[in-house]
Amino acid sequence: MQPADIAWILAAAAMVLLMFPGLAFLYGGMLDDRNVLNMLMMVMSGLAVGGVAYVVLGHGLVFGDSVGGLRLIGNPAEFAFFDAFVADDGAGGTISAAFFILFAAISVSLVASGAAGRMKFGAWLVFAALWVLLVYSPLAHWVFAFDDEETGVVGGWMANVLGLHDYAGGTAIHMNAGAAGLALAMVLGRRHTGTAMRPHNLPLMLIGVGMLMMGWIGFNGGTAAGANHVAEYAVMTTILATCGGMLGFIAVERVRDGHATLLGMGTGIIASLVAITPVADAVHPIGAILVGFLGAAAAAWAITWKRRHRIDDSMDVFAVHGIAGIAGAMFAVFFATAAAPAGMAGVVFGGDPSMIWREALAIVVTLVYSFGMTYAIAWVMDRIHPIRVPEEGEELGLDRALHAESAYDGGII
Amino acid sequence: MQPADIAWILAAAAMVLLMFPGLAFLYGGMLDDRNVLNMLMMVMSGLAVGGVAYVVLGHGLVFGDSVGGLRLIGNPAEFAFFDAFVADDGAGGTISAAFFILFAAISVSLVASGAAGRMKFGAWLVFAALWVLLVYSPLAHWVFAFDDEETGVVGGWMANVLGLHDYAGGTAIHMNAGAAGLALAMVLGRRHTGTAMRPHNLPLMLIGVGMLMMGWIGFNGGTAAGANHVAEYAVMTTILATCGGMLGFIAVERVRDGHATLLGMGTGIIASLVAITPVADAVHPIGAILVGFLGAAAAAWAITWKRRHRIDDSMDVFAVHGIAGIAGAMFAVFFATAAAPAGMAGVVFGGDPSMIWREALAIVVTLVYSFGMTYAIAWVMDRIHPIRVPEEGEELGLDRALHAESAYDGGII
Amino acid sequence: MQPADIAWILAAAAMVLLMFPGLAFLYGGMLDDRNVLNMLMMVMSGLAVGGVAYVVLGHGLVFGDSVGGLRLIGNPAEFAFFDAFVADDGAGGTISAAFFILFAAISVSLVASGAAGRMKFGAWLVFAALWVLLVYSPLAHWVFAFDDEETGVVGGWMANVLGLHDYAGGTAIHMNAGAAGLALAMVLGRRHTGTAMRPHNLPLMLIGVGMLMMGWIGFNGGTAAGANHVAEYAVMTTILATCGGMLGFIAVERVRDGHATLLGMGTGIIASLVAITPVADAVHPIGAILVGFLGAAAAAWAITWKRRHRIDDSMDVFAVHGIAGIAGAMFAVFFATAAAPAGMAGVVFGGDPSMIWREALAIVVTLVYSFGMTYAIAWVMDRIHPIRVPEEGEELGLDRALHAESAYDGGII
Repeated sequence: MQPADIAWILAAAAMVLLMFPGLAFLYGGMLDDRNVLNMLMMVMSGLAVGGVAYVVLGHGLVFGDSVGGLRLIGNPAEFAFFDAFVADDGAGGTISAAFFILFAAISVSLVASGAAGRMKFGAWLVFAALWVLLVYSPLAHWVFAFDDEETGVVGGWMANVLGLHDYAGGTAIHMNAGAAGLALAMVLGRRHTGTAMRPHNLPLMLIGVGMLMMGWIGFNGGTAAGANHVAEYAVMTTILATCGGMLGFIAVERVRDGHATLLGMGTGIIASLVAITPVADAVHPIGAILVGFLGAAAAAWAITWKRRHRIDDSMDVFAVHGIAGIAGAMFAVFFATAAAPAGMAGVVFGGDPSMIWREALAIVVTLVYSFGMTYAIAWVMDRIHPIRVPEEGEELGLDRALHAESAYDGGII
Repeated sequence: MQPADIAWILAAAAMVLLMFPGLAFLYGGMLDDRNVLNMLMMVMSGLAVGGVAYVVLGHGLVFGDSVGGLRLIGNPAEFAFFDAFVADDGAGGTISAAFFILFAAISVSLVASGAAGRMKFGAWLVFAALWVLLVYSPLAHWVFAFDDEETGVVGGWMANVLGLHDYAGGTAIHMNAGAAGLALAMVLGRRHTGTAMRPHNLPLMLIGVGMLMMGWIGFNGGTAAGANHVAEYAVMTTILATCGGMLGFIAVERVRDGHATLLGMGTGIIASLVAITPVADAVHPIGAILVGFLGAAAAAWAITWKRRHRIDDSMDVFAVHGIAGIAGAMFAVFFATAAAPAGMAGVVFGGDPSMIWREALAIVVTLVYSFGMTYAIAWVMDRIHPIRVPEEGEELGLDRALHAESAYDGGII
Repeated sequence: MQPADIAWILAAAAMVLLMFPGLAFLYGGMLDDRNVLNMLMMVMSGLAVGGVAYVVLGHGLVFGDSVGGLRLIGNPAEFAFFDAFVADDGAGGTISAAFFILFAAISVSLVASGAAGRMKFGAWLVFAALWVLLVYSPLAHWVFAFDDEETGVVGGWMANVLGLHDYAGGTAIHMNAGAAGLALAMVLGRRHTGTAMRPHNLPLMLIGVGMLMMGWIGFNGGTAAGANHVAEYAVMTTILATCGGMLGFIAVERVRDGHATLLGMGTGIIASLVAITPVADAVHPIGAILVGFLGAAAAAWAITWKRRHRIDDSMDVFAVHGIAGIAGAMFAVFFATAAAPAGMAGVVFGGDPSMIWREALAIVVTLVYSFGMTYAIAWVMDRIHPIRVPEEGEELGLDRALHAESAYDGGII
C-alpha cells in the first residue's frame, strides 16, 4: 500500500469502529426499555472481547500459514500478540491488521442479537471469546486467506480451491453471524415474557442505522485495501444498494400490511447492506439497486415466515444477515457484470455455470459449520453452568436484573 | 484525480452519507412525537428515491452535454444507468459520480421539511422523484456543469455565461431547497392542529446537527475534488463558520428573548453551514466567522419575521437554507479575499462590481424557478390525487395514521 | 505533507469535529433531564468561543516563536487572525492549523463538565475564552511547540528542554482539562439539590461515547500529521486500548459492586482513550490493551475514592481525564517498547530512568498550573460578578432557568 492507500484505510477503520455503537443502537432501539442497556453492553463487549481474542490468537488462525497445508485453519502462533505489526513494513500492514480486528469483533457483536433479553452477561463474554476463535476464525481463514505464491503461505479452501468470490465477507461475516445468532437463540430458548417484540425507541434504532451506513462505507470500501477503483466502485454500489433496500422492504410492507414503517425502512437498509457486501465489486450500478431491493425484500419475506414459526430470534439476525446475504451472493452468480472490477460475468451473461454450485456449497458449508459449532459451544457452556438468566431476572428485565441500571431515569419512557 | 484525491473523496462521500440520518434527526427532533417517524422516513426516502432517479436519468441532466447547446439542461441519455462509471477511468470518475448522487438526494431530503406532518407518504415518494429530475437537475446543470474545452461539452448558463461563483451549491442546493420547501408548504396549506411547533426531543435535534456538521466537512471539503489546498481551506472555513453561527444565533436570541437556547444554537450551526457553502473557498478565516455569524443572525431574523406571518414552514427551511444562503453569497460578493483559493476580490476590496447583479440575478432566478416549478409539481399532483393527509390523520399524527407505528413505546415520551 | 497526508488530516479533522457533539451527549446523558440542554450548550459553545479565541490569538500563543526565548509562551501576533494560513504553503499548513483549532476547543469543552448544573451561561462563555488563552495556550506551547532548527523558532520547555514524550496531549489536553474541571467545580461549590447524580438517558451517553471513539481515531491518528506508520500505529493502539478499557472498568465494578454497568463501560472507554493518548506511538499492542485496562481501572478507583469525599465533579472529569492520563503516561515510562514508532524503551526494558522524574515533573507542573490558573480565573470572575446560578434556578434546573427550554416535550422523560 502507498500513503494514499493508508490514508483511506485509516479513515475506513474509523468508520468501521462506528459500527459498534451503530449496531448497539439498532438492536437496543428494537428492544423494550428494560433490556436495552444489556444489549448495548453485549454489542460493545463484542469489540472488547473479540478484539483481545483476535490480537492474541485470532489473526494467526485467519491469516497464518494453513496448518499442515490443509487449508482449514491458520497457524495461531504466527501473528500472536500482533508482534508482527509493531515495526513499519512500509506497506500499511499495521492498519490492515487493525482493520481485521474490527471484522472479527463486529461479527461476534452481530451474534449478540440472538441472545436478546435472556443471557447472563459473564457467559456472553466467555462465549464471545470462544466464538471468535472457534467459529469466526476458521471461516475467515477459508474465505479471506488467499495463497501467497511469493512467500508460499497457504490459505483457506473456499478462497483458493473452491474459487469462491466473496468481496467483503458475505459468508464469513454475515451468513455466519446469521446462523450463529439463530443457534444461540435456540440454545437459550424462547423468552417467557410475551411474544411480541416492542421496539421502545425507533429514533434510536435509526441512529444505529445511520452509524452503520457510514460504517459500511468503510467496511466495503476499505476491503479494497487502498484508494483505488475497487474502493470507489464498492462505495458507489454500497450507497445504491441502500436506496434499493429501503424501497424493497417498504414495498413488501405496503403489499403485506398496507403501510410502510420506519422499522421496515431501517431493516431494509441493513439487509441491503448485507446483500451488497459479498458482491459490491461485481454488479452493475443498477444491479446494486436490485441487489439491495431483492435482499431487503427477501429479508422481509423471511421475517414474515419466521413470525409464523416460533423461533425467538427477536432481532431477526438470520433473516437480515443470513437470507439477505444469500440473496445478494446468488444475484451476483447470475447477474454479475464482467465490466465491474471483479471481472466476473454472471451465468446469465455467459459466466461459468459452475459458480452456482460453488457458491451454493460455500453458503451451505458456512451455515452448517456456523450453526453447528455455535450450537455446540453454547450447549456445552450451558451444561457446565447455565448461561440463561433465571426467569425472575427476565421478568424484571436484564437492565435491572444484571446491571442494576435503568436506561431512562424515571422508568418507562 | 490521483490516489490521494480518491482517498479523500471516498472519506468525504461517507461523511455526506451521514447527512441523511443527520437531517432526519434535526427535523424529527423539532417535531412533536406523533410525527417524528414520518419525518425520518421522508428524509431517508429522499436518498432512496433521489438516488435511483439520479442514477437512471439525473446525472445526464446535470452533467450531460447541454441539449441544443442552450445551456439549460444536459442530455439525460449520456450517463443513463451510470453505465459510464463501471469501468476505471483512472481518475476517480466513479467516486465523483457517486458523490453527486448524494448532492441530488440531500437536496430533496431538505425539501421534506416543508411537508412536515401533513403529506401522504406515497405522494412524497412520487414528488421526490419528479423534483430531482425537474427542479434539482436543471439548477445543478446551470451551476455545476462547466464547459469542457477539451471535449467540447457545453455546460450550464450560470457557471459559464453568468460567471457565477458558487463553491459548493449555495444556489442549486440550499436556496433551491429553501424555496422549494416553502412552495411545498404553501401547496399543502397550514396544519390544522395548533400553531406552535413543540420540539419533542432537543437532544435528538442536536444528534442531527452533530452528524450534519461532520457531513458538511465532507460536502464542502469534497467539492474540491481532491486532497488539495482548496479542500483544506474549505474545511477550515466551514469549521470557523459554525463557530460564528452559534454565536450569531444566540446573540439575536439574547437580544430578542433575553436568553439563548439549544434550538437556536443548533439552528445557528445549520444556517452558518449553509452560508459558508457557496463561499468556503473565497473568504478570509475571520470572514468565515463573520459569514457564519451573519448567516445565522439573518436566519434568526427571518424566523422572527415569519412567525408574524402565517406560513407553515415549521422547520424554517426557507429561513435557514434560503436567507442564510443569500447572506453568505452576498457577503462574499463584497468581502471576498483575493488571497483565498477562489482568487476573487470582493467589491469592497476592488473586485468587479458587476458581481453584485450577477449574484443577485442567480439568486433571483434560482428562487423563482425553484419556487415556481415546485409549486407547479405539487399543485398538479394534488389536482390528480390529493397529496395531503385527511384531517383526522393529522389529528392522530402521521406516525400512527400513515405508518401504524409510534416512536416511543408507551406513547408520549 | 504530501497529498496523501492531507487526505488523512482532512478526514481526521472531520472526525475530531464529531467529538463536540460526542462530548455533549456523554455529559448530557449523565445528567438529570433538567440540566441536559445547558450542558449540550456549554460543550458546543466550547467550539464556538474556543475556536474564535484560538484563531484570533491562540495559535500564536501556542506555536509562535517563544517570547524572549523563555520557552513559556509563543508570540500571539505571529499567527493572529490565521492570516498565515490563507495562502497555499504546499504542505498542508492550513489543515494542520485547522486541526489545532479543534484541539484547543475540545480542551475547554472538557472543562465544561466541572460546571454541570450551576454556572451562568454568559459567564461560561467569558470563562471559556479566557481559559483557552491563559491556560490551554501556555500548556500547549510547552508541550506541542518543538524547536525548529531551520527557521530558528524557539518552542516550549517541556518538549525541548525537559524532553517530555507526550504523543497527542496527555498533559496539555487531558490532565489539564481534568485539573481545570476540578478547580472550576470547587470555585462554583457543591450543588444544592441532592448529591446523587442521576443519569437521565444512558443510551444518549453511549451515543456520545460512540462519537468520541470515532473522533479519537482522528485525534490520535491525525496527530501523526500524515498517512504514515505513526498514524496507523496510533489508530491500532487506540482501538486496542478501548478493548482493554471496557474490560478494566467493568472488572472493577464487578469486584466492587457485584455487577457491571453500561455507565461503567462507557466511562471505561473514555478513560482508556485518555490513557492511550500520550503513549499511542510508544507501547506494544498488548501494552495498549493494558494501558486501556489500567487507565480505566485507575479511573474507576478514583471515582470510588471521590464519592467518599465531597467534591462536586459530577462528570468525574478529574478521574477520567486526570487519573487515567497519568496512568497511561506512567505506564509508558516503565513499559514502552523501543520497536514502536516513538522508539522509546521503558525503564523496565532498559530505558533511561530519568524519564520517571521528567514525566512526573511534567505531570505535576501541568496539574498545578492548570488547577491554579483555572481557579484564579474563575475566582476573579466570581468576585467581579457572581458566576453561579442563584439557588432557585438550580432547583428549577438550568434548562428552564437559563434557556427557557426543556429537553423533552411533556416534561420528565
